[in-house]
Amino acid sequence: MSRAGSAQGALGERRARLLLARMGEPYDEWVQALVAEHGVEDLVGYALRDGRTPQGVRLDRLVGRRERALEADDAHIARSLGARVLVPGDEEWPVEVDQLLAPPWCLWVRGPQRLDEVPGRSVAVVGARACTAYGEHVTAQICVELAEKGFVVVSGAAYGIDAAAHRAALAVDGRTVGVLAGGVDVPYPRANSDLIARIGRVGALVSETPPGGAPARMRFLARNRLIAALTTGTLVVEAALRSGARTTVRHARELDRHVLAVPGPVSSLMSAGCHAEIRMGATLVTDAGEVAEAVGRIGDDLAPLKRGVVRDEDDLTEDLRRVWQWLRPRASSSVDEVMVRSGLAVREVLSALGELEELGLAEQLLDGWRRRSAR
Amino acid sequence: MSRAGSAQGALGERRARLLLARMGEPYDEWVQALVAEHGVEDLVGYALRDGRTPQGVRLDRLVGRRERALEADDAHIARSLGARVLVPGDEEWPVEVDQLLAPPWCLWVRGPQRLDEVPGRSVAVVGARACTAYGEHVTAQICVELAEKGFVVVSGAAYGIDAAAHRAALAVDGRTVGVLAGGVDVPYPRANSDLIARIGRVGALVSETPPGGAPARMRFLARNRLIAALTTGTLVVEAALRSGARTTVRHARELDRHVLAVPGPVSSLMSAGCHAEIRMGATLVTDAGEVAEAVGRIGDDLAPLKRGVVRDEDDLTEDLRRVWQWLRPRASSSVDEVMVRSGLAVREVLSALGELEELGLAEQLLDGWRRRSAR
Repeated sequence: MSRAGSAQGALGERRARLLLARMGEPYDEWVQALVAEHGVEDLVGYALRDGRTPQGVRLDRLVGRRERALEADDAHIARSLGARVLVPGDEEWPVEVDQLLAPPWCLWVRGPQRLDEVPGRSVAVVGARACTAYGEHVTAQICVELAEKGFVVVSGAAYGIDAAAHRAALAVDGRTVGVLAGGVDVPYPRANSDLIARIGRVGALVSETPPGGAPARMRFLARNRLIAALTTGTLVVEAALRSGARTTVRHARELDRHVLAVPGPVSSLMSAGCHAEIRMGATLVTDAGEVAEAVGRIGDDLAPLKRGVVRDEDDLTEDLRRVWQWLRPRASSSVDEVMVRSGLAVREVLSALGELEELGLAEQLLDGWRRRSAR
Repeated sequence: MSRAGSAQGALGERRARLLLARMGEPYDEWVQALVAEHGVEDLVGYALRDGRTPQGVRLDRLVGRRERALEADDAHIARSLGARVLVPGDEEWPVEVDQLLAPPWCLWVRGPQRLDEVPGRSVAVVGARACTAYGEHVTAQICVELAEKGFVVVSGAAYGIDAAAHRAALAVDGRTVGVLAGGVDVPYPRANSDLIARIGRVGALVSETPPGGAPARMRFLARNRLIAALTTGTLVVEAALRSGARTTVRHARELDRHVLAVPGPVSSLMSAGCHAEIRMGATLVTDAGEVAEAVGRIGDDLAPLKRGVVRDEDDLTEDLRRVWQWLRPRASSSVDEVMVRSGLAVREVLSALGELEELGLAEQLLDGWRRRSAR
């Protein structure tokens, strides 16, 4: 039997992917290996026909959900939810997710934001659910500015950092995408239902779990790889040493995307994960400008160099500064005194005093010279 | 005239260096250039004889303090202060300072700590004078442990981070060295006089400025290069973007020593300098273990890897975890239910349930299986 003509023929790649998404968990190495060997269409065909590959490998793991998968009318579900399902080859398919070791079979999307536009100019903002007020504050500050700069803020709609990131982007009418572990019609956590609904109205909700699918722990971990793959870089704002956010970072690193982290007090357990990431090579960032510089377009998004307060005296030549610092603000000094103290020759001292006077940094009194400050 | 026989002959390198230290400011490029050309002995000889080099370069900058330098009886001063003066070639001379572009002419030392032992196992701990309570706390915590591990804590005896570092080392009878901008007999700032005296009794006070010399702004900047040169690495705990501490870091970097920085809240101006240094390549450190690992001996000082709390469920294989997470803690699930939910075949589910039961993570009831937690 030839592979193409054997099991399915009329099934088609698209239908096969939708069925596979319902029959198998995402991020399952076993299924990925079988797909690599047989292709999606053939593998799903085998599972539907007699539950084993021509080589005799039993596909029980897929067969268990076979009947339910066949019953689901995905086209109808999509219409009723105002959602769409993307597969590779669709114009809106974000090809960047194909770089994953375990790419999704399909992506359910709900909301006006086109998904193929996201990876090019976006930041995944992730972190602790149980974040501190500091983390929430910094997230809001950075995400407002990133959204204003045109970056899509991508996160997981969870409590804490995730919610703060989405809310900040929404607050300035920026673009934001929520990647969910359950179906795009299953808001989780429940308390974030309003937020999630808003993201779906103006941005996009994305999931590889078909509608109705429950958010389960394994799906959260799998979801994190999508967040990394859909973005130009991943920013972790606050995370404990052991944190789901760090799995997103790990994926971003594997995908060779930018990894950024916000520091915090070393005494804060919620910053320990960020510090560990910086020690492992993540770029320390303190504001949106530095994030944009790292993940943005060269030229457009260069962060301004941070400088301290400029004091005029700092811009003096060495000789001028040397004389200036030996002058006193509230008592006069003779040229001889300045000469001995500064270690300069008399000519040098006189020339320096003249220049300082012109700059308004020294003043000649009856009995000598007095220091003045620039302002 | 030959150089050796011309100006001084009997002056000697040691005496010439002591005089030069009194006549010229340290860190003066002009004097350094002349020394490079003529050597210390000849140059000082020229300054003492007719105030110009054989090539006619006027040495006014040195001559201004010539009389005072000749009047000073350094041997007597050293005895009366219980101090010593080191020059290159002395057994206690820390040869590491010779790596500086502008090495000191001599070093005045007061206190029992041998200076040549410092660079091999020491940390410069520097930072803002106007530090926060956070900075002071972290400095104390890190320096207590560094001192206990046998590192010499080197700093500048200033307010803030400097004082906290010295105090922490002294508190555990550790070793500490204060590098001063003025003479070793000129405690500055005055309010730290007791602290400085204590450092001189049990550690060492070091300065290239001869006794009696006032601490002047330029000398603080020059002093910072000595702090960097005398240590294995430099740790900046808190620093504003524009901060003297960052000049120490710059020197440490030029000398290819380790540069370390403690992070803090991004909203703290006193951490902005640290964050800038980390972005420029400094190693982020959060505790003494990580400092010791960076600057210490390989093997001896490896920091323990930070781990989060280990939960037994995390150590499960993928199949076990998949089954475990689909079980409910307070209601039972049938094997069929678990099979459909987990996407595993019945054999896999039964085998996983058995293993989970053995691990105490699942429990068989009359009507199915229930999840149990490890503790």
